Amino acid sequence: MSETQRESWTGSGATAHHMDEGEFRRFGKEMIDWVADYLYGGVEKHPVQSRAAPGEVRSMLPGRPPREGEGFKDIISDLDRIVLPGLTHWQHPNWHGYFPANTSGPSILGDLVASGLGVQGMLWSTSPACTEVETLVMDWMAQALELPECYQSVPGPGGGVIQDTASSASFVTLLAARERATDWRSNREGLGAIDRRLVAYTSNQAHSSIAKAMKMAGMGEDQLRLVGVDDGHRMDPSALEECIRRDLADGHLPCYVCATLGTTSSVAIDPVREIAEITDAHGIWLHVDGAFAGAAAICPEYRGMHEGLELADSYTFNPHKWLFTNFDCNCLWLRDREPLVRTLTVMPEYLRNEASESGRVIDYRDWQVPLGRRFRALKLWFVMRFYGIEGLQALIRHHVELASHFERLVEEHPSLELSTPRNLTLTCFHHQDGDAATEELLKAVNATGDAYLSHTRLGDGDGGDRFVIRVSIGQSRIEREHVDRAFELIAREADRLSRR
Amino acid sequence: MSETQRESWTGSGATAHHMDEGEFRRFGKEMIDWVADYLYGGVEKHPVQSRAAPGEVRSMLPGRPPREGEGFKDIISDLDRIVLPGLTHWQHPNWHGYFPANTSGPSILGDLVASGLGVQGMLWSTSPACTEVETLVMDWMAQALELPECYQSVPGPGGGVIQDTASSASFVTLLAARERATDWRSNREGLGAIDRRLVAYTSNQAHSSIAKAMKMAGMGEDQLRLVGVDDGHRMDPSALEECIRRDLADGHLPCYVCATLGTTSSVAIDPVREIAEITDAHGIWLHVDGAFAGAAAICPEYRGMHEGLELADSYTFNPHKWLFTNFDCNCLWLRDREPLVRTLTVMPEYLRNEASESGRVIDYRDWQVPLGRRFRALKLWFVMRFYGIEGLQALIRHHVELASHFERLVEEHPSLELSTPRNLTLTCFHHQDGDAATEELLKAVNATGDAYLSHTRLGDGDGGDRFVIRVSIGQSRIEREHVDRAFELIAREADRLSRR
Repeated sequence: MSETQRESWTGSGATAHHMDEGEFRRFGKEMIDWVADYLYGGVEKHPVQSRAAPGEVRSMLPGRPPREGEGFKDIISDLDRIVLPGLTHWQHPNWHGYFPANTSGPSILGDLVASGLGVQGMLWSTSPACTEVETLVMDWMAQALELPECYQSVPGPGGGVIQDTASSASFVTLLAARERATDWRSNREGLGAIDRRLVAYTSNQAHSSIAKAMKMAGMGEDQLRLVGVDDGHRMDPSALEECIRRDLADGHLPCYVCATLGTTSSVAIDPVREIAEITDAHGIWLHVDGAFAGAAAICPEYRGMHEGLELADSYTFNPHKWLFTNFDCNCLWLRDREPLVRTLTVMPEYLRNEASESGRVIDYRDWQVPLGRRFRALKLWFVMRFYGIEGLQALIRHHVELASHFERLVEEHPSLELSTPRNLTLTCFHHQDGDAATEELLKAVNATGDAYLSHTRLGDGDGGDRFVIRVSIGQSRIEREHVDRAFELIAREADRLSRR
Repeated sequence: MSETQRESWTGSGATAHHMDEGEFRRFGKEMIDWVADYLYGGVEKHPVQSRAAPGEVRSMLPGRPPREGEGFKDIISDLDRIVLPGLTHWQHPNWHGYFPANTSGPSILGDLVASGLGVQGMLWSTSPACTEVETLVMDWMAQALELPECYQSVPGPGGGVIQDTASSASFVTLLAARERATDWRSNREGLGAIDRRLVAYTSNQAHSSIAKAMKMAGMGEDQLRLVGVDDGHRMDPSALEECIRRDLADGHLPCYVCATLGTTSSVAIDPVREIAEITDAHGIWLHVDGAFAGAAAICPEYRGMHEGLELADSYTFNPHKWLFTNFDCNCLWLRDREPLVRTLTVMPEYLRNEASESGRVIDYRDWQVPLGRRFRALKLWFVMRFYGIEGLQALIRHHVELASHFERLVEEHPSLELSTPRNLTLTCFHHQDGDAATEELLKAVNATGDAYLSHTRLGDGDGGDRFVIRVSIGQSRIEREHVDRAFELIAREADRLSRR
């Protein structure tokens, strides 16, 4: 149906307050151009890091909402005038902070369709395609990453689901682990009624979301054991085993281990096979968090990190970091979905329906914290189809090559030192003059507005730790010239510091 | 910057796999037209409820992801051919199931901008405008609803935040209540280390997310007290008080009460003032869940339900239900934000930054389960500005009038009976011949594809309960003709049943 075949919709009475059809088409196309202007070049005209002071953005906006509606043009003009200068631009090719949150045309358009359809996928029955496309695309992704077959929903008993973030994926798997370990008693009676304290394990390099998950799950942050790491910042399996034995001897109930593929500080890859053999022997839930690095496994040469995943219970990674799918899009797979569903299900009368009761469908509300859910699978489906596996592989390899190029530049510079060998696209380095110089270097580079870098602390090999700069590469449109420009900035500021 | 002022971006090498600038502009505009075709008329050509059988959608799609990228045209053609018939259409004007999840032009375009900008608002420093526009728009909404001033972030200590759903809002406030009641001991030591069992309260008509939150928080579903209701399905404050006294006598630790403004089954409004006086006297956290009905308070005539909110600790409602803002957009306000932030904060080195440490900014990651966050405030900001308070009021009133018209039609029909008086836009009714007839009526109407209704069970006043049909009104473009058409269908099927 096209615009010319029928009259354009305009409301009458109260519905005249809606944007009418002609306006939606016109403003919609203007916004597409606005986004295109921004993503395909405009973003590079802004300083990467916003220079706004606390309260500055708010102070430019009216303190009270408008009584009468405003024209759409006025809204857009505030976007340009007030919002853009207040942003730190994650889509700038010289965004090297934290990890990428890269996006792409197909993803944005998939998300647009999801916004327009406005369906709720809480139950299969509330929109079958919303569930079935998600289940399919999660199976596709499992195949694309060559995950062990047990994680696919067909034939089951595994399966995948899209969550908002890896934090949520870790949290819900911790809940399932807690319940499995207590035979679902804590779900009913609460942890206050259970004598032995549940304990969980992750490395001292793991993401803070694990500690947060422990708190939320009522298990207490003190019951999370932060296992030591080797020189490469990878979890030490013998330290894990020792820790579990000690806890068992003390009457604790170990229920969950989280291994990391790509730690936030240095993209260290925990040895999953060795960890999985320990958790398997003790019947402990093993969750593997590949939030960032997991995307690399789209290329066969990086799939070694999956070794042993067939012994894990759950695996997660974020296409919204490094796979051209805009936030939010986290993939979580379960080797067996039943413990998770059993943990999170609640069935009130108003949600009862034949399809659910037949047991033949997946109701994703039972796999997550919220009840409602958006058709997030569309954007991932669009991305996988538009790029194909080969397109995604080419881009991942391109980013790793750029990072390798950057690493060489750092190695060759007289006052900079690698803090640890580069992992995938993350290079950690410091100034040879020590923490104060490194911190000053970071500030100086970020102050230019031409690139954005972040920091962490890493063990210096002598029992101390060191302030290090993290340079992450992976924004969608990054080319070699951007990397060279970032390095020039860094080198210039480093030289200035050394000359003082 | 317009397309003509510079050359259009196309990638080279690996980046040639991206959608190039010209394609994005072209396909983007096609998708805007596609969404316009759907929302402004096209949706009405589909049966409201999908007729897909389990597995049918999936069976029409390839079992494996493509190796090479596909053309965008092919993706769109599958949307029309496979996805649309597999959807249940929540944006159809004759969508009367559950509650509305209505959307609008300004909201869709705000969401498009958020997808395009792709910024992360986890910390103030990661994109100041993302946080400040959200804080502002939450203050605007608090003003628009005339919430007690304590809920605004300026001057504090209250404040608002956008969550994905009311389920998450209930969960995080339950966590804050749990921690406040245990002086933050359970966050550290876990509930297994705490002797007295924590208990929480809500009515037996409250949303299932409260029971789910209890399970997730490690407090146990058995420790949730489902308080009795009056004839209008509203929580009975004397029953609540009695229950709290009994628990205290038994050595329990009451920590949380959730009152509902607009229950799912019948949109019953709990008496907040009377409940708040009880929780205030006992120092119990009072959370008020106005997920659906809260939107009505945009009109002064419905603000009576807020009476006593100044004694509550937190309040939530969903613009993504009945305020023309597409999912996900839940508003949560705290009277004092400190207990929530203290409960959810974890600060690893890689997230440390001067702004956070100055204490002068809000870091919304400490208000929610996930770390990452999308710029969701944009769509709500667009909606409030485009409609203005008056536009939103006019539409809310229009929907209530339509529901009142529908209620009269039911009352006048010889074989239909109201199950409880209409509340706002929800009418619950049944067939006079009993549950089997009502259930058959529901199925018959939904099978026509011309309208979609859902069901629940409600007390029949004689100690039993009854299967009732819920007719919810509130899709963005609904007009009187849609309501009349839905009623005609219902009446036709009801008559057919009565004649047998």
